[in-house]
Amino acid sequence: MPSKAEIVELLAREFPHDQCVVEAVGDRSATVSHAIGPAQLRPGNTVSGPLLMAVADVALYVAILGTIGLVPLAVTTSLTINFLKRPASAYPIKGVCRLMKVGRVLVVGEVALYSSSSEDMIAHAVGTYSLPPTRPRKTE
Amino acid sequence: MPSKAEIVELLAREFPHDQCVVEAVGDRSATVSHAIGPAQLRPGNTVSGPLLMAVADVALYVAILGTIGLVPLAVTTSLTINFLKRPASAYPIKGVCRLMKVGRVLVVGEVALYSSSSEDMIAHAVGTYSLPPTRPRKTE
Amino acid sequence: MPSKAEIVELLAREFPHDQCVVEAVGDRSATVSHAIGPAQLRPGNTVSGPLLMAVADVALYVAILGTIGLVPLAVTTSLTINFLKRPASAYPIKGVCRLMKVGRVLVVGEVALYSSSSEDMIAHAVGTYSLPPTRPRKTE
Amino acid sequence: MPSKAEIVELLAREFPHDQCVVEAVGDRSATVSHAIGPAQLRPGNTVSGPLLMAVADVALYVAILGTIGLVPLAVTTSLTINFLKRPASAYPIKGVCRLMKVGRVLVVGEVALYSSSSEDMIAHAVGTYSLPPTRPRKTE
Repeated sequence: MPSKAEIVELLAREFPHDQCVVEAVGDRSATVSHAIGPAQLRPGNTVSGPLLMAVADVALYVAILGTIGLVPLAVTTSLTINFLKRPASAYPIKGVCRLMKVGRVLVVGEVALYSSSSEDMIAHAVGTYSLPPTRPRKTE
Repeated sequence: MPSKAEIVELLAREFPHDQCVVEAVGDRSATVSHAIGPAQLRPGNTVSGPLLMAVADVALYVAILGTIGLVPLAVTTSLTINFLKRPASAYPIKGVCRLMKVGRVLVVGEVALYSSSSEDMIAHAVGTYSLPPTRPRKTE
Repeated sequence: MPSKAEIVELLAREFPHDQCVVEAVGDRSATVSHAIGPAQLRPGNTVSGPLLMAVADVALYVAILGTIGLVPLAVTTSLTINFLKRPASAYPIKGVCRLMKVGRVLVVGEVALYSSSSEDMIAHAVGTYSLPPTRPRKTE
Repeated sequence: MPSKAEIVELLAREFPHDQCVVEAVGDRSATVSHAIGPAQLRPGNTVSGPLLMAVADVALYVAILGTIGLVPLAVTTSLTINFLKRPASAYPIKGVCRLMKVGRVLVVGEVALYSSSSEDMIAHAVGTYSLPPTRPRKTE
């Protein structure tokens, strides 16, 4: 399986504008974080919803790369996010992903999102990626 | 109900970094669009998923403002998006929102997302906003 | 494409306990209904949520069969339902499905659910089916 | 908080046709199970999707009752389910719920669904309940 450095390099090539930091990659899991600046804030000094969705999406992608290898053509097919708690604005957002199914065609995972100021989950996402059809078959 | 100009002004104050353009606002409906530049592109010359989520989120918010008035504290509580088709990169993204429920506490709407190059829906989102509790009660 | 009678026959074989009635089948669309008896009611004389989910699931399946042919191994991979309005108890539930994507591997559709007493949508579902891999390839 | 016996009694009154068994109730958590008979089976000897949705819905409701007290008017507002693995038909379905947010108006929880034959999750649901407005306010 690819190293964390190889995954970071692929992300930098694929998403040169993305500012997520890969904190950890494991088998069927990943942790990423994202610093918060003025562009990510909303009135009331909270973090924008789309930023949380973006962090969830990247966390899923990193966990998939760490589990099945460097598959640049995996694409998100669906994402459901529930916002649980208003995040504090001054702290980075952390996304902790756990894959629940790694099939031949579909991968399903969940992401718990935290504001680094607190242990409380601020949002929870479930996402599905589809894998490119040319990938060699693996037993599910 | 607020005019389109009043909604545009509120968005500019609340989301100074957002680049969505309000195309139309109606009762329980709204259309917004977003130009595509290098920062919104992904490898394969397609548009990033989080941008589509952001357009869906803004379309819902604009439809809510146009339906219940300028409520700056409405917040997204959940969003589910399904990606249907790879968008062409050179064209703006359009989000067409229709509210399905406007309750005292919860608003639910759907957003059809299009790449302006085509009539085909590229993504579909369903989102829920919760309204601030101090709003005067209306009959549902 | 199969006739409505052929689809009804397949459903009767596959789901002998299901009581959904196929009202109409079209290209990428279907309408089904379900009568309401004591077992489907909840306190407050409303219809149980799981029944609405079941009607949505069958409406999607019927629309898929009517669009791609009699594929008995299509399986639901996800379903998201939003409950919008309390249905009246005495009336059948109607589910109106429209497919939004018919791919080689995934089909995505939405279902509007109605209580036959009213024009108002009582629930809205979005579901995904995956198709068996042995199906001959079609251009998406 | 109510005892398990009080919750079982409320369920029996509210859902006399439901066959879920309450296995455990805790603070922000619950485990329920459902036996499988011919009416819950689908071709290929698997369990029907709507049954899994029903088990998820009941698991959420039991966790809510165990956490905030016997609130008969809590209603499901949304449910998202991902089907991960085909369950074995001969075994009961188990739903393990954990609440992620218990607010004044909305409760959000996730449910892991298992076939009792295996440790593997067969489906994962996230659901939202809304609480009746007359409930005394609690600090979130």
